[in-house]
Amino acid sequence: MMKYITEATAKQTIRIRPTDSFKGTYGHITLVGGSQNFGGAIIMATMAAVYSGAGLVTTLTDPVNRTSLHAQLPEAMVADYHDEAMLKSSVSGADVIVIGCGLGTDDDALNILKTVLDTVQPDQKIIIDGSAITLIATHHLSLPKAHLIFTPHQMEWKRLSGISLPDQADVDKNKAVRDQLNATVVLKSSHTQVYTANDVFENTTGTPAQATGGMGDTLAGMIGGFVAQFSNVDLAVASAVYAHSAIADELAQHQYVVLPHQIIHHIPEFMKANEA
Amino acid sequence: MMKYITEATAKQTIRIRPTDSFKGTYGHITLVGGSQNFGGAIIMATMAAVYSGAGLVTTLTDPVNRTSLHAQLPEAMVADYHDEAMLKSSVSGADVIVIGCGLGTDDDALNILKTVLDTVQPDQKIIIDGSAITLIATHHLSLPKAHLIFTPHQMEWKRLSGISLPDQADVDKNKAVRDQLNATVVLKSSHTQVYTANDVFENTTGTPAQATGGMGDTLAGMIGGFVAQFSNVDLAVASAVYAHSAIADELAQHQYVVLPHQIIHHIPEFMKANEA
Amino acid sequence: MMKYITEATAKQTIRIRPTDSFKGTYGHITLVGGSQNFGGAIIMATMAAVYSGAGLVTTLTDPVNRTSLHAQLPEAMVADYHDEAMLKSSVSGADVIVIGCGLGTDDDALNILKTVLDTVQPDQKIIIDGSAITLIATHHLSLPKAHLIFTPHQMEWKRLSGISLPDQADVDKNKAVRDQLNATVVLKSSHTQVYTANDVFENTTGTPAQATGGMGDTLAGMIGGFVAQFSNVDLAVASAVYAHSAIADELAQHQYVVLPHQIIHHIPEFMKANEA
Amino acid sequence: MMKYITEATAKQTIRIRPTDSFKGTYGHITLVGGSQNFGGAIIMATMAAVYSGAGLVTTLTDPVNRTSLHAQLPEAMVADYHDEAMLKSSVSGADVIVIGCGLGTDDDALNILKTVLDTVQPDQKIIIDGSAITLIATHHLSLPKAHLIFTPHQMEWKRLSGISLPDQADVDKNKAVRDQLNATVVLKSSHTQVYTANDVFENTTGTPAQATGGMGDTLAGMIGGFVAQFSNVDLAVASAVYAHSAIADELAQHQYVVLPHQIIHHIPEFMKANEA
Repeated sequence: MMKYITEATAKQTIRIRPTDSFKGTYGHITLVGGSQNFGGAIIMATMAAVYSGAGLVTTLTDPVNRTSLHAQLPEAMVADYHDEAMLKSSVSGADVIVIGCGLGTDDDALNILKTVLDTVQPDQKIIIDGSAITLIATHHLSLPKAHLIFTPHQMEWKRLSGISLPDQADVDKNKAVRDQLNATVVLKSSHTQVYTANDVFENTTGTPAQATGGMGDTLAGMIGGFVAQFSNVDLAVASAVYAHSAIADELAQHQYVVLPHQIIHHIPEFMKANEA
Repeated sequence: MMKYITEATAKQTIRIRPTDSFKGTYGHITLVGGSQNFGGAIIMATMAAVYSGAGLVTTLTDPVNRTSLHAQLPEAMVADYHDEAMLKSSVSGADVIVIGCGLGTDDDALNILKTVLDTVQPDQKIIIDGSAITLIATHHLSLPKAHLIFTPHQMEWKRLSGISLPDQADVDKNKAVRDQLNATVVLKSSHTQVYTANDVFENTTGTPAQATGGMGDTLAGMIGGFVAQFSNVDLAVASAVYAHSAIADELAQHQYVVLPHQIIHHIPEFMKANEA
Repeated sequence: MMKYITEATAKQTIRIRPTDSFKGTYGHITLVGGSQNFGGAIIMATMAAVYSGAGLVTTLTDPVNRTSLHAQLPEAMVADYHDEAMLKSSVSGADVIVIGCGLGTDDDALNILKTVLDTVQPDQKIIIDGSAITLIATHHLSLPKAHLIFTPHQMEWKRLSGISLPDQADVDKNKAVRDQLNATVVLKSSHTQVYTANDVFENTTGTPAQATGGMGDTLAGMIGGFVAQFSNVDLAVASAVYAHSAIADELAQHQYVVLPHQIIHHIPEFMKANEA
Repeated sequence: MMKYITEATAKQTIRIRPTDSFKGTYGHITLVGGSQNFGGAIIMATMAAVYSGAGLVTTLTDPVNRTSLHAQLPEAMVADYHDEAMLKSSVSGADVIVIGCGLGTDDDALNILKTVLDTVQPDQKIIIDGSAITLIATHHLSLPKAHLIFTPHQMEWKRLSGISLPDQADVDKNKAVRDQLNATVVLKSSHTQVYTANDVFENTTGTPAQATGGMGDTLAGMIGGFVAQFSNVDLAVASAVYAHSAIADELAQHQYVVLPHQIIHHIPEFMKANEA
C-alpha cells in the first residue's frame, strides 16, 4: 500500500544535532559529474549537499568547472575526475557517493562511471543520477554491491527498467524492477515516488514552478546530504524529496518559477524548522 | 491604430502553470552570443531567459565566458559556439533561439550567425538582437522561414530598415518594413513599440533609470523566456517588454540607476503577481 | 577659503534624469587597470562606475581578470589592455577615462599608461589614480591636454607634488602644485580635500571603518561615474567624494568595517535619495 | 586555572576605531595556501581576514584560485605562491602571516612552507593552520623566532605534540607542549581551548551546526584579522575564537547547518555590536 511523504516524514528524520559532534559525524560525500557542457549540474548538486549539512564534500569534475564551483561555494573541495588515482581515493574515502549530475554520456563519462562502480564498497551509499543511469542502461553495466539509490526521471526509468511511460503508472511493475535492482528508486515526476525494499512512498509536495533545468541535480545532492546524516536511508531519501519540493512550494507563493539555487539557499532554514 | 501595452497585457498573457507540467512544457531556449569582449551580454540574456521560467536553457558562446556564466547562474548549460556540429544540434533542438547578444560583428560572428540562420526551421521562433541585426543589414543576409522577432534599438533599426531616426517616428513607415520582413519588430526606445502582423503596440512603462548597458540583452532573454512559454507570440513579446520596464519602474522608486541583473532577479515575483 | 562638501553639494549635483534620455546621455567610461596581482582593484572601480549610473562601461585589463569581473558584474564590457589598437579605440570612444586602479608599476603598466596619455583628447576627462600617479611622478611623464583629475593618497601626492606629508597640511602649497598641474586634485585622507581651479573643498563625511583596501579604487570609479553624468566637473568630483563616505558612514552604524563592494551596492539608493 | 572566553573577552578586545586612522593602522596580512584541490580553504580564510577589518590583505595561492577568489571578494590582492621572490616579499611586508589553509602536504606545499618559515621575522605574527601543522610535525621543521599561533584540530595537535586524543583532555599536558613550542595554541574542538604563555582559556560559544568543512580555515583568517588590529595577541586570538562561534550560535537559531561564508558575512556586524 502506498504511503505518503509528509511533514511528519521530515520531522521523523531530521535529528537535533548532538552537542559533541564534529565534521565526521555528518559524513563525507564525494560527487562525480559535470562535463565541459554541463558543469552547472554538478555545481548545483554540490551546493545542495553542502547546504543540507554534509560534514565534508569533495567534487570530482572536469577542471573547467573548478572556478565557477568555488565562485558559488568555497566550502567544497574539488579535483579532476580524469585523475583516476584521485577518483578512486575520493570514492573510497567517502561515506556517500553521488554520480551522474551533468556527467554526459561520452566515452570519458563511461570510463569515469566504470571506475566509480568498480571502486564502491558494500558499506557505501551511492546515488546514481542523470546520465549515469542512461549509461548503465545503455551499456548494461553491472551494478556494485552497495546501497544503491537511483534517481531517474521517467525517460531514464524507461531506459533502466524497460517499463514504458504509461506502464510506469503501475506501482507493482516499478516495484518488481526495483526488487531486481535491489535499490532505492526515486521515480521523479510531479508526484515523485520512492520505492524501497519494503514500501512505496509518494510525495505530497511540489509545484509546477519547479519545472526548470537543474531541479534533478539539486535533488540528487540533497539526497546525498540527507543520507550522509540520517541513519534510516529510506526515510532520509523520502525526507530529501519532501524538503526539496516543500521549499519550492513556499517560494512559489511569491515566484512564478523557482530556481534550483534558490531552493538550495533555503535548505538550512527548512531543516531547522523540521528538526526533532 | 496604436494599442498600448499595460498591466492588462501581462495578465492576459502570463498563465497559471498547470499542475501536471514538466520542463518540456516551458520550452527549450538556445541562446547564441557573447564574444571575448562582450561576454556579459550573453550572461544577462541567459539569466533573463532562466528567471523568466524557460524549461531548459543552453548557451552557445565563446568558451572564455563559461565560468562567469556559471558563477552567475549554474542553471544553464553551456557550449562553444565555434563547434559547428554542437551549434547546429543545439539550434535544432530548441523551441526558441536568441541570437546576437554580445555576438560582435567580426568574421567569427558572421559565420556563427549564418550557421544559425541556415539551421532554423519554420516552426521555430528566433529572436534576433544586437549585432546579429547589424550583420544581417550589412551583409544582406537572407532571412530564414521561421517566426522572426527583431529587437533593434533605433540605430540598428536604421541599418536594417533604412529608415532614418527622425522618420522612425512615422509608424506607417516602420510597419511597411515590418511587413516586408514578415517579422515581429520590437523597436526599442524610451517608448518601445512592438510591430506585429496585425497591430502596433506601444509600451507604457519605463524609466530613464534603465539607460545603462545590458538592458537590451536582458530584454532579448526575457522575450525568449516569454515566447517559450506563452502561445500567443505577439502578446508574449509585448508582455516581456512590459515586464522588463515595469520591474525597472518599481526599482527606480528607490534607485537612481537600475542595473539589468537587478531586473532579472525580480522577474519571478513580477510574473507571479501578474499570472491569471 | 576652504569650502565644505556636504549633503547640499550632492543635492546640487545629482540631477533627476530627463525622461527622454538614453545610454549616451549618461556617458561612456573606459577604465584601464588591473594587473595579474591587482585585478580586484579594477573590478571595484568598474563596479563603482556602473552602479553610479554611467551609460556604458568598458574595462581594459589583463585578460586573467575577465571572468572575475563578469562574475561580479555582467554589465561591463571587457578587453585586453595589451591590445594596443583596442586600447586606443576604447580610450578614443570614451567620454571619461579612469586609469591606474591596480595597474601596477612595471614596464607593461608604463607602456599602457603612455598609450592612454598619448591618446586622450582635450575634450575628454581622465581620472588618474593609484599606480598611474606613481608612474607619472617617477618617469616624469608629460601630461596630456584634457580635463585631468588626480586622486592621490598622501604618499602618491608626495611623489607627484614633492610636498612632504607634514607640509600637505598647508593648503596653499597643495594649491600651488595643483595650479601647475592644471588639474582637479582629490587629496585622499580621513578629511579628503578637493582642489579645483577656483576652490578648495573639504569633505565632511567619512569613518575609520573605511580604512581598508580597495576604497580608493572604488572612489576612482565613482568619480568616473559622476563626472560622466553631471556637467559641473568640480561638483561632480566633490559629490562622488561625499557619496562614497556618506554611504560608509551609514553602513558603519552597524558594521565595524565597511567593505568597498558594500558601498558600491548602495550607490543607486544614495543617489536617488539625493537627486534634485 | 581555566579561564572562560565570553562576551566580556570580545568587548575587552575590540576597540572603537580612532578617527584619524588609515589602512596601515589595521595591519597588512599575507595569507599563503590553497592548492589546486583546496582552493576554497584559502578563499574562506581570505574573506574572513578582510571581513574582520584587516587594512590590507594579500593572498599567495595557486594561480587557478585567482578568479574564484576575486569572484567572491575583489578586496584582496593575489599572487602565485610558486613565485619565490613574490612570496618572500609578501611575507616580509606583512604584519601578520596566515599559512596552511588548503596548502596540502605535497612537495610544493613543503617548499612554500619552508620559504615562509625562513622569511618570517621576530616582530611578525604567524598563524600556522591545517596542513602546515601536519608538514611541520611530519618533517620536523624547525620553527622561526616570531609570535607563533598554532590552530590545530585534535588530530593535527596529536601530530604536532605527540599527545593522544584521550590525553588531550589533560590541560597540563597540552600546556607543557605549548611551553616547549613557545606559541599560542588554539586547540579546536566543540570546546575550543586557547593556550597562551600565562593562561588557558576555554570558549563558551559554539554549535554542532558548525560541524562542516571550512570552519577551521575561516577561524584562521579571523584570527589573522583580529591579531592584525588588536595589540594584546592573547585576547585577540581568544576574541576571534569567541566571535566565530558566537556568530554561528546566532545563525543556528534558524539554520540546521551554518556555512563558513555565512559566518564571514556577519563579522562586521558582530564586531560593531561588541566594540568598546
